[in-house]
Amino acid sequence: MDIKEIYLNKDKFMEKEVIINGWIRNHRKQKDFGFIDFHDGSCFKSIQVVYDNKLADFDEIQKFKIGSSISVTGKIIKSPASGQDFELQATSIILLGNSEDDYPIQPKRHTREFLREQAYLRPRTNLFQAVFRVRSLTAHAIHSYFQENGYVYVNSPIITGNDAEGAGEVFQVTTLDLNKLKNSKEIPFDEDFYGKPVGLAVTGQLEAETYAMAFKKVYTFGPTFRAENSNTKYHASEFWMIEPEIAFCDLNGLMDIEEDCLKYIIKYLLKHAKDEMEFFDKFVEKGLLEKLNNLLNSHFTRIDFKNAITLLKESAEKFENTPSYDEDIAKEHEKFLTNHFGGPVFLTNWPKDIKAFYMKQNEDEKTVAAVDLLVPGAGELMGGSQREESYEKLVDRMNELDMNINELDWYVNLRKYGGCTHSGFGIGFERLLMYITGIDNIRDVIPYPRTPKNCEF
Amino acid sequence: MDIKEIYLNKDKFMEKEVIINGWIRNHRKQKDFGFIDFHDGSCFKSIQVVYDNKLADFDEIQKFKIGSSISVTGKIIKSPASGQDFELQATSIILLGNSEDDYPIQPKRHTREFLREQAYLRPRTNLFQAVFRVRSLTAHAIHSYFQENGYVYVNSPIITGNDAEGAGEVFQVTTLDLNKLKNSKEIPFDEDFYGKPVGLAVTGQLEAETYAMAFKKVYTFGPTFRAENSNTKYHASEFWMIEPEIAFCDLNGLMDIEEDCLKYIIKYLLKHAKDEMEFFDKFVEKGLLEKLNNLLNSHFTRIDFKNAITLLKESAEKFENTPSYDEDIAKEHEKFLTNHFGGPVFLTNWPKDIKAFYMKQNEDEKTVAAVDLLVPGAGELMGGSQREESYEKLVDRMNELDMNINELDWYVNLRKYGGCTHSGFGIGFERLLMYITGIDNIRDVIPYPRTPKNCEF
Repeated sequence: MDIKEIYLNKDKFMEKEVIINGWIRNHRKQKDFGFIDFHDGSCFKSIQVVYDNKLADFDEIQKFKIGSSISVTGKIIKSPASGQDFELQATSIILLGNSEDDYPIQPKRHTREFLREQAYLRPRTNLFQAVFRVRSLTAHAIHSYFQENGYVYVNSPIITGNDAEGAGEVFQVTTLDLNKLKNSKEIPFDEDFYGKPVGLAVTGQLEAETYAMAFKKVYTFGPTFRAENSNTKYHASEFWMIEPEIAFCDLNGLMDIEEDCLKYIIKYLLKHAKDEMEFFDKFVEKGLLEKLNNLLNSHFTRIDFKNAITLLKESAEKFENTPSYDEDIAKEHEKFLTNHFGGPVFLTNWPKDIKAFYMKQNEDEKTVAAVDLLVPGAGELMGGSQREESYEKLVDRMNELDMNINELDWYVNLRKYGGCTHSGFGIGFERLLMYITGIDNIRDVIPYPRTPKNCEF
Repeated sequence: MDIKEIYLNKDKFMEKEVIINGWIRNHRKQKDFGFIDFHDGSCFKSIQVVYDNKLADFDEIQKFKIGSSISVTGKIIKSPASGQDFELQATSIILLGNSEDDYPIQPKRHTREFLREQAYLRPRTNLFQAVFRVRSLTAHAIHSYFQENGYVYVNSPIITGNDAEGAGEVFQVTTLDLNKLKNSKEIPFDEDFYGKPVGLAVTGQLEAETYAMAFKKVYTFGPTFRAENSNTKYHASEFWMIEPEIAFCDLNGLMDIEEDCLKYIIKYLLKHAKDEMEFFDKFVEKGLLEKLNNLLNSHFTRIDFKNAITLLKESAEKFENTPSYDEDIAKEHEKFLTNHFGGPVFLTNWPKDIKAFYMKQNEDEKTVAAVDLLVPGAGELMGGSQREESYEKLVDRMNELDMNINELDWYVNLRKYGGCTHSGFGIGFERLLMYITGIDNIRDVIPYPRTPKNCEF
């Protein structure tokens, strides 16, 4: 029996006997009574267990410690206490697993820094119960959205020989004996597991494109890696990405999908994680629910990068960074734009030199058909583009950037064998979670976060 | 418009005009007519496009090559041809993307070995359309099963400092400059990204257990890695695993869940991938549908390892490998057992020495509460166990095996802080796919498989 079931069917269980297994969150003792804040992980809420000295082992029960696992048999009754409709009047409480006095998660306020060090215990707290149930539900919302809309889920490879973004900050993967390496003249990659240097994927997009040319609509959802030495609240070296890719779809079609997808996810959470979302609204980011509801009710603005820069330049606002037609925009500019339009903004057709090689080159020869989605309070949430479908233009651009075309011949060949207009976008799963929950540190939305010098558990 | 929509609503579309984008699978030309086998990736089936010389650009259209992407406008009409209810009478066919003469996927029989070399194009073939749509649907069936049953999805870490299974065959992950390493006396792990040696996870189970102690029911579903130099049909170095973990659940409860889960997945596929499953039954494994339906209709047998060995020993069968009470069983034994019981068999309580350290030690001190699920035609499909919940027994066993307890203190501590009876199992996603599709080589159920000396795309 789950506590969740009781909350879902209060009336049905009233005055009925139930047996529930779970953990002691808190334990208040009085001379002839005891109250246990009892949680079983099935939902955000806990239930109050009341017991009295009529129980034969009353004295033993009073010694049960915070964190212990117990099995409670009892009756659901109307609660006289305020703030709860019912409670569980115990007829038996059996200790299943003791908890020791040094149990770190005591019923008091712990800092998030402390809880990060106790990452294996923190899901037992209210905050992380909410965070990680919402993480799970968000993942399922994403899968459900794409599956319901006829997309095929593709597992792009994690270990890869291509450095797709040309970013360079890639983790190497090897089975070579690093100790023996010290004495060898050349790195013997022919003795390595794959016979060549390989690393962890920074994206699955290029492989997703190959599948979009077969299934029309596909998406990836898997871990990606960045060996970037960034110690910020926004960077983890291991994070999950969703990368949808759609054939016969241009930039406008892509924006339709992005907007539809984001609204679906948020609606799903407001419906399936009501308690958790209210908790975030109350204790993590005041106004969170209003922010999300505003997004649901808005039609996302679409504006050319060029026009946005003009708007920034002509505004009365004093910016620390001068807006430029050739450069990326700053956080303050993003903020101005979402404020100005009173909601999410799709920023399209970016300067080619600050975007990736595979993006479709526009006729002006200066911009590419890229789009970033900016949302109030978080800035960029999704990034996408129409992909270059011309073999010649793609090869020219790769040559310009001094890329190894041979290594990516399969990717380039897609343009030789029935290529077509196609587009795709990426969502950083954790960035999305931060936006949805209001949690401001990426380390607090990943069960076991990996950051520079930190790979615990 | 998708071809899938037309198949789902034939009557609605009859005599109606449609516009569809897709690819030419085959192109038969006659003097005044042409027939295009037209596929758009939205479902397994293609549609026949018929055009005639009334089209102004008839001569141009006749030159369209296999693999090209086209946009077809036309009317859905009753088909005179056998084997199809309707066809698409084109009023316009526009070339979107040409395909060149060296396009490797011509309408003839290609070997699977050849198609593996063309891994970026193989999803355009019937076989791999079926395989990778079923892979996607199976993934969603798994997520749906666990989400509907109240499990929380946990992303266990991919980069890890623990060698959880003690298996040793782990890929190292590093950002050290291997070239400079040659000249250094000691490996400078303090300069490495995480400040210590790390590798790719072989399992997420231990981390999943920590979350089961908070959410009661959890599951992982992510990539795992084995740097094992095995060149068999069953081994890949990168594969996906599902690892559910359930608190307050013993070995019997676990078997209930495993059986329920497997049946759910198979039912889901028989319903949502009808065409694909029929294709596998006809062209990949004759009798596949019967095999799966038999499984659905059977109640899985549960038998003690010891009793199974006695059964093997007492059988009239001549085995190449002598059954032993202390050793793992061979493929031939698995086959005998599933034949003998006429269906899937749960084999429980295995000799402790051939199983992992974390499994619950039985009172006989010789066996552990492990369970393997054997299925007809494939042998082991799932492996699980009740976990040792006694702090002392777990530590003793780890000492016996000379394991570093300090490194896993968080895992061991779960037994100090409200531990309880709990169990979990693992499913190799690709092994499951091989069983479900009848495909006999793991390289053919992974989009871009990684095996020794092979890391292409």
